[in-house]
Amino acid sequence: MRINVVNPNTTASMTAKIAAAAEAAATPGTEIRAVQPTEGPPSIEGYFDEALSVPGLLSEIVAADRGGVDGHVIACFDDTGLDAARVIARAPVVGIGEAAAHLAALVAGRFSVVTTLSRSIPALEHNLVRYGLASRCARVRASEVPVLELEEPGSAGRVRIAAEIALALREDGAEAIVLGCAGMSHFAEELSAEFGVPVVEGVAAAVRLVESLAALGLRTSKIGAYAPPRAKAYSGPFAGLVTHA
Amino acid sequence: MRINVVNPNTTASMTAKIAAAAEAAATPGTEIRAVQPTEGPPSIEGYFDEALSVPGLLSEIVAADRGGVDGHVIACFDDTGLDAARVIARAPVVGIGEAAAHLAALVAGRFSVVTTLSRSIPALEHNLVRYGLASRCARVRASEVPVLELEEPGSAGRVRIAAEIALALREDGAEAIVLGCAGMSHFAEELSAEFGVPVVEGVAAAVRLVESLAALGLRTSKIGAYAPPRAKAYSGPFAGLVTHA
Amino acid sequence: MRINVVNPNTTASMTAKIAAAAEAAATPGTEIRAVQPTEGPPSIEGYFDEALSVPGLLSEIVAADRGGVDGHVIACFDDTGLDAARVIARAPVVGIGEAAAHLAALVAGRFSVVTTLSRSIPALEHNLVRYGLASRCARVRASEVPVLELEEPGSAGRVRIAAEIALALREDGAEAIVLGCAGMSHFAEELSAEFGVPVVEGVAAAVRLVESLAALGLRTSKIGAYAPPRAKAYSGPFAGLVTHA
Amino acid sequence: MRINVVNPNTTASMTAKIAAAAEAAATPGTEIRAVQPTEGPPSIEGYFDEALSVPGLLSEIVAADRGGVDGHVIACFDDTGLDAARVIARAPVVGIGEAAAHLAALVAGRFSVVTTLSRSIPALEHNLVRYGLASRCARVRASEVPVLELEEPGSAGRVRIAAEIALALREDGAEAIVLGCAGMSHFAEELSAEFGVPVVEGVAAAVRLVESLAALGLRTSKIGAYAPPRAKAYSGPFAGLVTHA
Amino acid sequence: MRINVVNPNTTASMTAKIAAAAEAAATPGTEIRAVQPTEGPPSIEGYFDEALSVPGLLSEIVAADRGGVDGHVIACFDDTGLDAARVIARAPVVGIGEAAAHLAALVAGRFSVVTTLSRSIPALEHNLVRYGLASRCARVRASEVPVLELEEPGSAGRVRIAAEIALALREDGAEAIVLGCAGMSHFAEELSAEFGVPVVEGVAAAVRLVESLAALGLRTSKIGAYAPPRAKAYSGPFAGLVTHA
Amino acid sequence: MRINVVNPNTTASMTAKIAAAAEAAATPGTEIRAVQPTEGPPSIEGYFDEALSVPGLLSEIVAADRGGVDGHVIACFDDTGLDAARVIARAPVVGIGEAAAHLAALVAGRFSVVTTLSRSIPALEHNLVRYGLASRCARVRASEVPVLELEEPGSAGRVRIAAEIALALREDGAEAIVLGCAGMSHFAEELSAEFGVPVVEGVAAAVRLVESLAALGLRTSKIGAYAPPRAKAYSGPFAGLVTHA
Repeated sequence: MRINVVNPNTTASMTAKIAAAAEAAATPGTEIRAVQPTEGPPSIEGYFDEALSVPGLLSEIVAADRGGVDGHVIACFDDTGLDAARVIARAPVVGIGEAAAHLAALVAGRFSVVTTLSRSIPALEHNLVRYGLASRCARVRASEVPVLELEEPGSAGRVRIAAEIALALREDGAEAIVLGCAGMSHFAEELSAEFGVPVVEGVAAAVRLVESLAALGLRTSKIGAYAPPRAKAYSGPFAGLVTHA
Repeated sequence: MRINVVNPNTTASMTAKIAAAAEAAATPGTEIRAVQPTEGPPSIEGYFDEALSVPGLLSEIVAADRGGVDGHVIACFDDTGLDAARVIARAPVVGIGEAAAHLAALVAGRFSVVTTLSRSIPALEHNLVRYGLASRCARVRASEVPVLELEEPGSAGRVRIAAEIALALREDGAEAIVLGCAGMSHFAEELSAEFGVPVVEGVAAAVRLVESLAALGLRTSKIGAYAPPRAKAYSGPFAGLVTHA
Repeated sequence: MRINVVNPNTTASMTAKIAAAAEAAATPGTEIRAVQPTEGPPSIEGYFDEALSVPGLLSEIVAADRGGVDGHVIACFDDTGLDAARVIARAPVVGIGEAAAHLAALVAGRFSVVTTLSRSIPALEHNLVRYGLASRCARVRASEVPVLELEEPGSAGRVRIAAEIALALREDGAEAIVLGCAGMSHFAEELSAEFGVPVVEGVAAAVRLVESLAALGLRTSKIGAYAPPRAKAYSGPFAGLVTHA
Repeated sequence: MRINVVNPNTTASMTAKIAAAAEAAATPGTEIRAVQPTEGPPSIEGYFDEALSVPGLLSEIVAADRGGVDGHVIACFDDTGLDAARVIARAPVVGIGEAAAHLAALVAGRFSVVTTLSRSIPALEHNLVRYGLASRCARVRASEVPVLELEEPGSAGRVRIAAEIALALREDGAEAIVLGCAGMSHFAEELSAEFGVPVVEGVAAAVRLVESLAALGLRTSKIGAYAPPRAKAYSGPFAGLVTHA
Repeated sequence: MRINVVNPNTTASMTAKIAAAAEAAATPGTEIRAVQPTEGPPSIEGYFDEALSVPGLLSEIVAADRGGVDGHVIACFDDTGLDAARVIARAPVVGIGEAAAHLAALVAGRFSVVTTLSRSIPALEHNLVRYGLASRCARVRASEVPVLELEEPGSAGRVRIAAEIALALREDGAEAIVLGCAGMSHFAEELSAEFGVPVVEGVAAAVRLVESLAALGLRTSKIGAYAPPRAKAYSGPFAGLVTHA
Repeated sequence: MRINVVNPNTTASMTAKIAAAAEAAATPGTEIRAVQPTEGPPSIEGYFDEALSVPGLLSEIVAADRGGVDGHVIACFDDTGLDAARVIARAPVVGIGEAAAHLAALVAGRFSVVTTLSRSIPALEHNLVRYGLASRCARVRASEVPVLELEEPGSAGRVRIAAEIALALREDGAEAIVLGCAGMSHFAEELSAEFGVPVVEGVAAAVRLVESLAALGLRTSKIGAYAPPRAKAYSGPFAGLVTHA
């Protein structure tokens, strides 16, 4: 099985970290293909960055889908471009934000999310409402650690994330923690050990979920919101994206 | 007062129709500037088209905002790119989908939306949930008239839209109708007369609302989700968009 | 255009303040007619005061509606008697509570309301649920400043209101503030400057919204909950209210 | 125990029917005092009638409360004036709409309401949302039988009500029926026998519930929304209502 | 009238306390029959204890139902086994958790629950969602007093419960309190006097509610989720439970 | 990896079918252990059957958990006993109802469930509310095929299930189908081919999900609702269940 894991920002060190998390989580025999767009924002922090990352992300989805992968993972916790990717891809697509929430809901009554900046909280809350899982999330918390600081060796990011986890367990009634950024994937195991609760990381969760969909023959339904694009004359850099339109 | 009205698709005849609706609705003295992107999809029908239209839309928002307009209208009923536009613009931004829903909620307990294709229903329903107005919407209905068919003289589109309005009033308990596409704006007045209920059209509603915000000195809050982009090195065609980043 | 602004309590100084806010917000050329009932409670603080103010309020709505105004504003943040007024009036009716919430929702993801007494919080929360905008309101806060204290020069009311705004921004995740009493209208501009966020005041918001409805030819739908009263023999002081019944 | 049952409209034949239902339901030894206002609408069909009935209703509540009753029932299915009555009364107050919904929720997973006119449906739906019981109500249905037609011997009202009950059981997934008008109280027993499901009638339900509250020493909480009115100078016919103000 | 009150745990001293509360609350002439299973958990603290108590509880319901009682009360605040009991019983069944919530909703806009251990909070919250009354509950609080400690004379339980009530009134906006364990029934009256708000205790509430249902001829609807079991060959200790199957 | 799949009813032919579905879905190398209780109901159709199946189910969970399995699947679509099993088991536990809903939510915006008897609809709807996924479910439909009829070769069950799927796609706006009974697992593949949409079957979904949890080291959180039972003297057949209590 081949899984296409797209980091929708342009920072290569994050792609490498994501690839490592994906490979560690994958079933033996699964091939992980981790990529990033050539153009776009270097990190995704809020609605504007999300919007700018989508064209590059979709290019990577389309290229891999045509190349015959069995599934796609969008490795940004905002699940940037997820709906558009489901429209254009033949293979199933899973976002790391939704993946982490779905798995957390299987091991805890209620979880809290610990993400990077507070400006991202509303977008994550809206996603949870859409997925239907908002009632399972006690609170979305921000550590105020910028995404790229997580890439710096020796940063204080981990300390601030741990501090928010402690607050989530004490104040929110959370029974599990979801790490709200692909750049935090390497912290999951030791934070789980430190706090004695499940700490769910989205890259691993998404890889396992998309493998499961592919193994069971489940692909995105094409009869409603995710129907293939209608035939029309797209102009600009995206003109070539839709071959069958 | 100067209002920037952006049609996020590339079809010039729609922009002309939108401009006419905006000018008819504007307070005397308001100057309407109606534009469209040079590249992107010719109509917006579903999540993929939405995603592809956003870069061009944002370019138009940024250009006009720097030019000193008092407000922006996004003239696609999906309110495509609304959040990103609020992040990047200094002046207030109103989408025609939200505008129509807010005004309909002031003249009726419950309204139904009549849009183009059924593939757009889920996106419109999600928007209403986000705006908080889902409980005011009895049902989102599709007339199955493609967007660009509304541009063809003598098309059967109006007949099919009227048929859905009749169903909405008979079956949904709707007390008012919201027309769910910028391309339907010219039908509002006569459909209201035909059915004897308020028929709310989003371009007019958005122009009046953004004028109201501007007149009252209300701009998008910049302390949370709509805070200006952080300084970072965007690459690609968007590199120049963020001057203060 | 002529707008009838009804202060539903009997305190003339509040009517004067409301008139000033309405006139400042109105489009040039709009004529504001600000009135108050001759009988009823001197301020509206809770469900009982609300109920007692309604007959006088409806008398003012009926009188102005027959006189040919283009719209009505109910200038109490509880939106007292709004549904009954919509039944009996020909012209559109907007309450200042709903107006402020709708405009706040266009400039912020989430807002908090700062009102007078805590006894009014449940009524305001119920209104927001009905309007559909409860999910957009982070919290309704009470300053514990009684309505009529806002009429006293040099009162400490403004200080306590500012203190609640500070808490709302720090604790609620609010991105904008709605002032929850018509008697606070004169504070909006300077509080917005002080805190650097949109501070929405309902009288101004309602005047602009009812002007917009009137300009667009949108009146209350008369096919459902707001259908005209059925012909029946009302007795008592209200006997003359319904001429066509 | 003495219970004050107020019919908030001015139709004496309805008061007599309500009194009969109340007496049949009361615990032996309970004294039922059934009254109606001297002025107001002869029937309550929509928001405007509701508003006009409230002053007369409150007068009856205040008079009986001072006279020392143990509880009050508001015998209109819209629960007209319920909040204001709870503010002003010492003894507990129960509306027949809420009473029927609470008891129906104890004998069925989901119930449908069959009321008089469709113009009342939104008000009843809003009440259910406020009570919290909307999720237990499958649908509010209108028989389109006006309130006063229920007073006419030999009217076709019962047939139309039964037709809606049949639809509710077939289409709504309802397991029980709530009769949505005090004027339908005499139909409950035979409709229950006819359809083989619980048919809950509000007058009986409210009498039993208010007896239960009184017997258990439970009165309306006076620390929040139902705190006694603040001392202020009410003017007009209501001036004498609040002695301690 | 004969009411069967089942304590679903095996602790006899709790059954005695429950019987006292039930008898104090019952209408004169009602006979209370208080029982407990012979086998099962000695207290119910969480989902596992709930599951183990159900077979014994159902045995007591079936035995009393065949013996001809007029109603059943399940005297555990988790309303353990309530749905299964409604399926198998002819007479109406009321749980003390739902009963307390329904009556509290008639005397206060919002109430808080004070229960025993925090592990029970999620189950109680889920119940409130199902009953539809979650919006009426400000918060479910745990006193961290184990159930059986409430049986020990001189325990500090009452002090810790009072401390949570104080917090609920100060922080939650609660206007009334619901005691969240049958073992707290003897505290209700004095805590209500101490705090000046309604304190609702479930055993008394349930006895009055099931008496009301029985008096009004209202039994569990048998056409949907509570239809009698289908004829099938149950094996094991439960084989004899269903005679008509 | 070893997975314990428990059919909570006593019908051996269903266990065999469930085992086949589980084995077909499992990752190569995973060992499936499919069992059923020795006592209880032969099929689970409603709340009463659910309650009676739980003790036997828990015995199977405890036995396998002590024996060292890596995860448990509860193979009844009602997710019978799931909360209690999570309390008592060391390894993760997944119900087939929740599993199917979670996976369906990854391949479709909205799905409908087609189950056996209409008496089970409310329980399934309540589960979806608890899981948070009710907003993703368009409708729960009953085929009115009893569980054990699915075991009979040549039954008309498949035809009636297909008829409900057709209705779900035409009337509900469903984009995918969830089969609502473990006994339908063998129909999934051909129904998906027949209707051209994803048809999700819970046994396969649960096996893949519990494998994923186990592979990622995610177990049920033990700090809240699923904390191990407190030490207490359980009596009766369950006395031996809790060794560490």
